[in-house]
Amino acid sequence: MGPMERLKMAPVVILSRPQLGENIGAAARAMANFGLSDLRLVSPRDGWPNKKAEAMAAGAAGVLESARVYPATEEAIAELNLVYATTARERGTTKEVLTPAEAAKRLRAATARGEKTALLFGNERAGLDNDEISLCDAVITIPTADFASLNLGQAVLLNAYEWFRSADETPPARIEHGPIHRKPTREELLQLFAHLERELEASGFLYPPEKHGNMVRATRATIHRARLTYQEVQTLRGMIVALAKGKHRVKKDG
Amino acid sequence: MGPMERLKMAPVVILSRPQLGENIGAAARAMANFGLSDLRLVSPRDGWPNKKAEAMAAGAAGVLESARVYPATEEAIAELNLVYATTARERGTTKEVLTPAEAAKRLRAATARGEKTALLFGNERAGLDNDEISLCDAVITIPTADFASLNLGQAVLLNAYEWFRSADETPPARIEHGPIHRKPTREELLQLFAHLERELEASGFLYPPEKHGNMVRATRATIHRARLTYQEVQTLRGMIVALAKGKHRVKKDG
Repeated sequence: MGPMERLKMAPVVILSRPQLGENIGAAARAMANFGLSDLRLVSPRDGWPNKKAEAMAAGAAGVLESARVYPATEEAIAELNLVYATTARERGTTKEVLTPAEAAKRLRAATARGEKTALLFGNERAGLDNDEISLCDAVITIPTADFASLNLGQAVLLNAYEWFRSADETPPARIEHGPIHRKPTREELLQLFAHLERELEASGFLYPPEKHGNMVRATRATIHRARLTYQEVQTLRGMIVALAKGKHRVKKDG
Repeated sequence: MGPMERLKMAPVVILSRPQLGENIGAAARAMANFGLSDLRLVSPRDGWPNKKAEAMAAGAAGVLESARVYPATEEAIAELNLVYATTARERGTTKEVLTPAEAAKRLRAATARGEKTALLFGNERAGLDNDEISLCDAVITIPTADFASLNLGQAVLLNAYEWFRSADETPPARIEHGPIHRKPTREELLQLFAHLERELEASGFLYPPEKHGNMVRATRATIHRARLTYQEVQTLRGMIVALAKGKHRVKKDG
């Protein structure tokens, strides 16, 4: 399976009896941001296509154009292998309840096995009914604070985000070092230390002598923590030159 | 620090020069869902308060009511210790770029040290300017697919979600077992196996004899995988009785 085929294997998003075009558009936009493209609508209240959906989808018009409409949930899920229902609250039936992150992990695993997967969302007013939930493998509930009032577009967004995140390799933290932003070598850093300490010594800042070692070490620690680029090391040395010159000038004047 | 004080320590959300009331309302709603309550607005374009924001906030009116308005970003962040700027794209400056998950982890750690933290969002049209970014400790960029077009409310939602998630203890997968949904004991499960196998034997299903052991083990594996509740075990036994009765009736009739 190539990367394009894998992309097509992203979960289908099914909206059951959605009411507001705005929410359908918001769902499409959320999907496109996170690599989902197959949208299915079960009897949308205001018909299809829908101008308000198009306005809200912004650049994600392609998702709306290829969306398919079905008369009933059974038909929308017919050829799929794994379907998760999203619900806001517990429903009494004894179904497995997953977090979006756990669901995304399982959807990835199913996709890797070649299964077709989907996320099923209920409408704005009533969510999914119990019959629709009974057609699904498990339920996804988004953990929230006591105030729990996510709208349809928000629920699609968070699930789409978790799907993308489950295979995303973005490093948690990074600093972009372009050609002019390379890290300094240790020698360049040691030259900075020597330059700064020489001028601080000359200025009388490193006083009294018994504290000299501690003060120098503390200053070096500060500089290390800043993780300077080569460019920033050069800028800092320029600052030291300028400030030291000023001091000498004052001395000469005085 | 008690739980209420900790809640108050959730990051402040600062919207810099927001344009549409709808987006301010969506941000407030996103915040309330994930336990954030301190909203600050830097010179909102359409003034404050804003009817459209109230309509969009749904039940999160409290967040809007306590929102404070500032003339400039510098004043909105003045008493804070750690501020992350959210941006959609790289900005050339050599700042650390964090994922929302990593940022949430660091915000939690700062909060635990007693620091006041914030998430700073730019406006719908232009995002944050470079001067505003230069006031912040680091940048958060939400990883997306090639189509990257999250609106302001969506960006607030995903960051608020990650904040909540970073301390959320919801188990990834669970089955709600209420008093009537307790797990069966092993004895109850073994009785089910015995009952089913006895009836399958009598019906001639477990044939030929040399495959008997494998068929029984495969059926037991299926039942284990279903992780039945006590209630479901009872229901299944009722089904076996009903089906077996049918068979006996047919025999008697035949």
